[in-house]
Amino acid sequence: MEFSQHDLQQLDKSFRAQLVNSLSGFKSANLLGSQNKLGQTNLAIISSVFHLGADPALVGFIMRPHSVPRHSLENILATGFYTLNQVNNAIWQAAHQTSARYESDESEFDMVGLTPQYLNGFEAPFVEQCHIKYGVELQSTQTLVNQTELVIGEIKHIYLPNNALMADGFIDLASVGTVTVSGLDCYSTTTPLSRLSYAKPHQAVKPLDVSGDIIK
Amino acid sequence: MEFSQHDLQQLDKSFRAQLVNSLSGFKSANLLGSQNKLGQTNLAIISSVFHLGADPALVGFIMRPHSVPRHSLENILATGFYTLNQVNNAIWQAAHQTSARYESDESEFDMVGLTPQYLNGFEAPFVEQCHIKYGVELQSTQTLVNQTELVIGEIKHIYLPNNALMADGFIDLASVGTVTVSGLDCYSTTTPLSRLSYAKPHQAVKPLDVSGDIIK
Repeated sequence: MEFSQHDLQQLDKSFRAQLVNSLSGFKSANLLGSQNKLGQTNLAIISSVFHLGADPALVGFIMRPHSVPRHSLENILATGFYTLNQVNNAIWQAAHQTSARYESDESEFDMVGLTPQYLNGFEAPFVEQCHIKYGVELQSTQTLVNQTELVIGEIKHIYLPNNALMADGFIDLASVGTVTVSGLDCYSTTTPLSRLSYAKPHQAVKPLDVSGDIIK
Repeated sequence: MEFSQHDLQQLDKSFRAQLVNSLSGFKSANLLGSQNKLGQTNLAIISSVFHLGADPALVGFIMRPHSVPRHSLENILATGFYTLNQVNNAIWQAAHQTSARYESDESEFDMVGLTPQYLNGFEAPFVEQCHIKYGVELQSTQTLVNQTELVIGEIKHIYLPNNALMADGFIDLASVGTVTVSGLDCYSTTTPLSRLSYAKPHQAVKPLDVSGDIIK
């Protein structure tokens, strides 16, 4: 089946949104925690968080124009801090519910039944029900071509369960139930095929177990 | 377990790379196809493709400085076109092998055993073994804070299997074996929890089947 650019332009808006949102592949599912200067909290699910670098530890995400998380962006610009919290298989429906258009004085934490958590004096709320989470300091925002906003921040403090961290630094996301999103609304759990050794020219890659050891 | 920013700076480089690469959550796995003006092809696995917008249909990805896909970036800048091809569970090891540092005159297609495919006169090679793929025209590149490159392009032509496309435009990625990556090297298949209805304030979200129908 094919869709040309012309075909895309002719499609029903909702059909096109589902189709094009599915093309990038599986996406990360994160809850973006923030608050305004008065401590009014906000929580928004986002599927566009991406790794930018490990040293310094930088992470980016995209905010769509006029989308629900605009309250989050206002908070981030006001305070300079936010949290990212991986969505897991115990809270995925509550996480999705944060995408409803609540009023700015309604906290999504209260509305969906998740618990704000303040750790080490960080100036934005974490999600208590999330196992892997980190505080981020805003570094830059910029408006991209279609009025989406690229937000880049530096990772300040990471929290994760001891047993999810492997000896080589790899985090076993499946072991804590982290989920992935596809399209606009499909949530999935994952099953590892395997890890793979660092690829070198003219050598076959070797399957590794979750600890990074070669599978015999 | 916690890591402060100071802790991160003290970590072994490889441990830190594994850790920080795991934080964003599950990532898309795509093969980036390109060629130079002479038709020399290049193929590189990337895990940073993200949705930017549906109308116009825009997609972005990040290229790390001095990383293997620099040959790809040179090709994209020279020709203005590239392809994105979703990695599936039949070719994930070959896809990972494209990350080896081959010489610029060695095509990763040949080296890893994947087949370049030319469709509708598009000026970049698709991957025959991939089920969901699309041709992209370069729209802009820009260098971000840590010398990573943000590449944005417009989707020109989409190919996918008929039976993976649902009536509402959603693509069932699991049905064609699309995989997801976590950390630097872990590949996983997925199992849907469910789709969820569009979230509205003060209404519970409803689980939907893969076709978008409410699950009774």
